[in-house]
Parts: sequence; structure tokens; C-alpha cells
Amino acid sequence: MSEARMQRVRARMTEVGIDALLLSLGADLPWLTGYEAMPLERLTMLVLPADGDAVLVVPELEAPRVEDRPEFTVRPWTETDNAIDVVAALVGGRRRLAISDRAWATFLLRLQSKLPDAAWSPASAVTSPLRAVKDEEEVEALARASAAADRVSAQLQSGEVRFVGRTEAEVSAEIGRRLRAEGHSRVNFAIVGSGPNSASPHHEPGPRVIEPNEPVVCDFGGVLDGYCSDTTRTFWTGGSDPTPNFRDLYAVLFEAQRAAVDAAVVGTPCEDVDGVARGIITDGGYGVQFIHRTGHGIGIEEHEDPYLVRGNAEPLEPGHAFSIEPGIYFAGRWGARIEDIVVATAEGPRALNTAPHELAVVD
Amino acid sequence: MSEARMQRVRARMTEVGIDALLLSLGADLPWLTGYEAMPLERLTMLVLPADGDAVLVVPELEAPRVEDRPEFTVRPWTETDNAIDVVAALVGGRRRLAISDRAWATFLLRLQSKLPDAAWSPASAVTSPLRAVKDEEEVEALARASAAADRVSAQLQSGEVRFVGRTEAEVSAEIGRRLRAEGHSRVNFAIVGSGPNSASPHHEPGPRVIEPNEPVVCDFGGVLDGYCSDTTRTFWTGGSDPTPNFRDLYAVLFEAQRAAVDAAVVGTPCEDVDGVARGIITDGGYGVQFIHRTGHGIGIEEHEDPYLVRGNAEPLEPGHAFSIEPGIYFAGRWGARIEDIVVATAEGPRALNTAPHELAVVD
Repeated sequence: MSEARMQRVRARMTEVGIDALLLSLGADLPWLTGYEAMPLERLTMLVLPADGDAVLVVPELEAPRVEDRPEFTVRPWTETDNAIDVVAALVGGRRRLAISDRAWATFLLRLQSKLPDAAWSPASAVTSPLRAVKDEEEVEALARASAAADRVSAQLQSGEVRFVGRTEAEVSAEIGRRLRAEGHSRVNFAIVGSGPNSASPHHEPGPRVIEPNEPVVCDFGGVLDGYCSDTTRTFWTGGSDPTPNFRDLYAVLFEAQRAAVDAAVVGTPCEDVDGVARGIITDGGYGVQFIHRTGHGIGIEEHEDPYLVRGNAEPLEPGHAFSIEPGIYFAGRWGARIEDIVVATAEGPRALNTAPHELAVVD
Repeated sequence: MSEARMQRVRARMTEVGIDALLLSLGADLPWLTGYEAMPLERLTMLVLPADGDAVLVVPELEAPRVEDRPEFTVRPWTETDNAIDVVAALVGGRRRLAISDRAWATFLLRLQSKLPDAAWSPASAVTSPLRAVKDEEEVEALARASAAADRVSAQLQSGEVRFVGRTEAEVSAEIGRRLRAEGHSRVNFAIVGSGPNSASPHHEPGPRVIEPNEPVVCDFGGVLDGYCSDTTRTFWTGGSDPTPNFRDLYAVLFEAQRAAVDAAVVGTPCEDVDGVARGIITDGGYGVQFIHRTGHGIGIEEHEDPYLVRGNAEPLEPGHAFSIEPGIYFAGRWGARIEDIVVATAEGPRALNTAPHELAVVD
């Protein structure tokens, strides 16, 4: 696995003209080697030259965490070493360098100062198209994470979780606990936006007490077996039936989301999938209220290539995995979103989230 | 609060020669404004010119999260805008720029490409000495976080949590649950290193089943009210008494940790506190086995200035908050660490962790 990925990375380095890849935080390093850098001030960095063997520069106190492996040798640095000097020595005279997109800016600045003749690119120029295509094992990991998130959706839809009278923060914490109980090792987010807050796509769940007769958007995800889940369902808190206005909004959204999933066919440009959802929502009279793209790729990282957004003409390939999550938002009033993770396959789009998409009425 | 911090930041920008501060991920932005950027591919960045008003550049779909506030105006960008262009326009002709240490490298590369005449520094050059000195409110937040972590230490020491026969990963997950139950909103880490894994300071808790008659290092922390906890206690799993070798090691460590806390007096150079712990451990015959610095600053971030490490001659100031955490590690055999958070005050060092430091024997 790892060996094949390493070969593809080296081939692509040659193709795009990169002499050394410097991998630190983010998904490139675990995707390539299985090792994840700690997000701390002590630098961990894999130096992978196009023309030589890879070396993992790692703080001495973390060296016992790293198993020996064929992909790289380990070069520990001590508390009084300068890690930047260690990396620079391994880079040698190589000039065209690519650094992890999520590496800290402070390390890039120090490397630039130490290596003034280097030309820098983001590592994604090398790795992103490779990582975007998931292999079978990765798709199954994504499917397991999505299935676990779906079990939480089902618990929310069944009435097992009380909404009315509790704060958004309480319901969010409960969703987090349930994601962990269903096997997630980490919770990335558990958005609960109620009433007017349902119109805030990235709402921070807070002290607002959920009332009867209002929408609640629940968007949650985390990590299971190293791969991310991310799903959204919208609820209506009972008392009365959803108002006609909201039912109309939801019906348009429901159709747009389903049509966009169906449109996620291999060969279709990413922006066209966005266009399908946007067209239906615009025709329904809510175009101005759909204020974000239709979706993002997903894998080891919660958001990665490919992005389903206007301007991205890249065609979908078999193994691309991404969210389909249109939303409609009336600022200060209410909103709704429906989100599934979908994989493009030769047999057509495969939705990994299958919890019911209908508006569930809950207590 | 925020107003006073803003004034101090502006004064220091003039002092060190920075024309505009660009704040994204990390603690600078919430410390200065109360707003925290989401760690995602859509850029959030506060542009704070030395000679003008601050503007928060934020993705349109996150704009509803940002309350109006006196410190900045909000400039949302839409899914088809280029956020880098928006930031560059706000920077204008200013050339000496400082960017958040933890901003993603990919954003720095794009800004450098858009603003080729700029000279870049890490934002810590401006903010770090200011943030390192905690005010009264911050010290009390740190004290609450430490007290919550201490309650978990007490639960571990009292025998309420079973060690033997369970995996490290299980005990780690239980520590995480207990940190949340004691008020933490986030768990940053819960290291459980048993037997030979106790010699790996940043061990990743795994499938190893904890046995009788061995040491277990538990190092855990998270976030409560926006500030971090971080504490370590070492345990001995019962059956037999700790071996004389381990008792000797622990006695030396215990003395070194206590002496280093006592040495954390205002005016003392940071490296001298490290020297006190290192001296005692070296005299005890374990110098080679103490493979990391004595401590790190702590606040909104888990590791920040000041670092108690050889080479850091900066004197401790009132309000500096940091860990004191010497350790002794025999690779492949065993190890131990004791860690408290301590604040330097005019009245002397104030330890925020007070759970017993003695080696607790547990089941």
C-alpha cells in the first residue's frame, strides 16, 4: 500500500518539478507513511527527496512513538538541537521544495530564511490528486465512519434524543458522546443550530434553549479508523406541523440534494454537480439563500479535494469521495441543510449516508 | 480587556517594526478579540494595520458566527471570491507583515506570491511576550482547568479507575470522559504509557494490556473556559511493592520536580529552573535519561512561551504560567514523569496542580 503510494508520489514529483517534499502536519504524512505528526511546537518533518531516501525528522522524545518502517529512516533531534538546521541539511542543495499545506507558517518562515534560494510550493500540488482518489480500503473506512454517523442520525430521528427545552450545547455534547459510543475516536464538530441559528451554516452551539415548532440543523462528524464522517440532517421540533413556508423550502432542498447525488457521475465536472443543486434551488426561488458550495472532498481530512464549487471544472473520477450538502438560509429566521458523503464509482454514485432524508419531527 | 490588549499590541508593533499583523489560526486571534478562526480551508484572517482599523476577513457562511464588536469590522467573502485578494487589498502597500505562527503554510505561500515585496515575520514576535504574561482573570481560568484535571488525578489515585487488565486505550478514553465530566470542553490528549511504554514521553495509548507490578505514566489535559490544563502523575500497578530500582528513580524525580517548582521565582532565568531539575536528576545518576526540557508555557495554547529549556535566558516574570515536568526514561524498560502547572507571582511560585505527587499504587 504505502510502497505503491510512495512510487506514485515520486513519479508526480518528477512530473510537476519538485526536488524535495517536506511533510509535517496534515494528512499527506499519515496517508503516505501511517505516521501522524503531533501539532506542537517541536517540528516533525519528513524530508522526501525525489532522488534519495526519505528521512523523518522527529523530536527525540517522540522517537519511541515511531516504529521502524521501510518508507523512511528516523532522525531524532534533541531539545538543544535546531530542527530547522537538521531539515535544511537533509534538503541539501535541492531548490524546488514543497511543504505540507497545513504546516505552521512559522516553520516555513524559518526554512525560507535558512534556505534563501529555494522556490516553494504547497505539497498539495504533488499529493492532492493522488489522495483525492480513494482506494477500496479507504472507501470502506469512509463507509464505516458514515455508517456510525448514520446510527447517530437514526437515534436523533427516532426521538431517542430530546431536543425541546435543552440547550444547543447540551444536544451537541450528546451527539459527540454518541459518535464516540458508535466508534469514533475523535469528534471534529457537532453543530446544532436551532431556530434563527439554523440559518448560520457553521453555527457554534450555544446556550440557546431549543423551542417547539422550529427547525434544528444538526451537522456532525469525526474520525473513525483514521477517516472522517460528516453528515447533516434537519429536524422540526414538534408541537405543530412545520409551517407551509418551511415545508416548501425543505421540499426544494430535498429535491436538490437528491438530484445532486444522482448527478455525481464519473466524468461530470465538479462544478456541474454544484450547478444541479443550485439550479433546482434557484428555480424554487431560494438561489440567493444558498450561500455556500455544494460540497467538499473528504478522507483523512474533513475537507480536501475535490471541491464541488463553481469554477472547478475537474471531472469526477472513480474513487473521488465528497459531501453533497446544499442548504437554504434566511438570516435571522431559519435554515436547513441535508448532507451525505458520496463516492463516485464506475457503477454510479454511491451514497455512504443512508439515514432518512425526510424532515423528522422530534420532541 | 480586549481594548487594553489591542493597545499593547499596537505599541509593540511599532516597537518591533511591523506594519500589519495578519492573524488566523492559533491563540493570538481569540486572545485579542475573543473570536477563534475555524481550522479549515476557507481563510479567516484579521488584518490589523499599525496605522488603521482592524478588519476580520471571514467566509460568508461563517459571518453569522461573528458578533459585532468594537475591535474590528467584518468583511465576508463568498465562495467565488479569492480570499487572498481580499486580504492583500486590506494590506495595501504595507510591507513589514507578521502572520500567525500556526497559520497554514499554503496561505502564507499564496500571500507571498500576491505580495512579492513584503517582508514576513511570525506574529509571535509581536504577541508572544504579551500573551506569556497572564492577567488575573487568565490565571484564575488556568487554575479552574488545573483543579478539574486534579479531580481526575484524585480519581485515578483513589482506585476509582481500574488499570490492570485494561488496555492503555481504554484507560485513556476513560480519562477523557472524566475530563469532560469535570468541565473540560475539549480533551487535547490523554497519554497512558504502561510498562515499557512509560519510557515513551509522548506515547500514543494503544492496545497494550496493563499488567500488575509496572509503572503507568498518565499525562492529560484539555480546555476549560478557553484555557488549557496539563498534568502528569505516575502510578504503580499493585501486586508487589515497587521495585527498589523504581523507587529510587521515583524519589530522585520527586525531589527534582519539587525543587524546580520552588526555583520558579520571578527574575530567575528560565534555563536555571531547567538546571535545578536537571542537576538533581544528574546527581541522582539519571541525567542521560532526562531527555526533554523541564517545561513549557501554557495558556490558550497547550504549549507556548516561556519554555524552561537550556538556552532560554529570559527571566521569569509575574504572570508567567508554565509546566514543571521532569521525567526519567529507560528506553524499552520503564519511565516516570511528574507535572504541575505553576504561575510565577511576586509572592513566589504558585502551583495550580496540588494532587498528591507520591507514587500511587493502584489496581
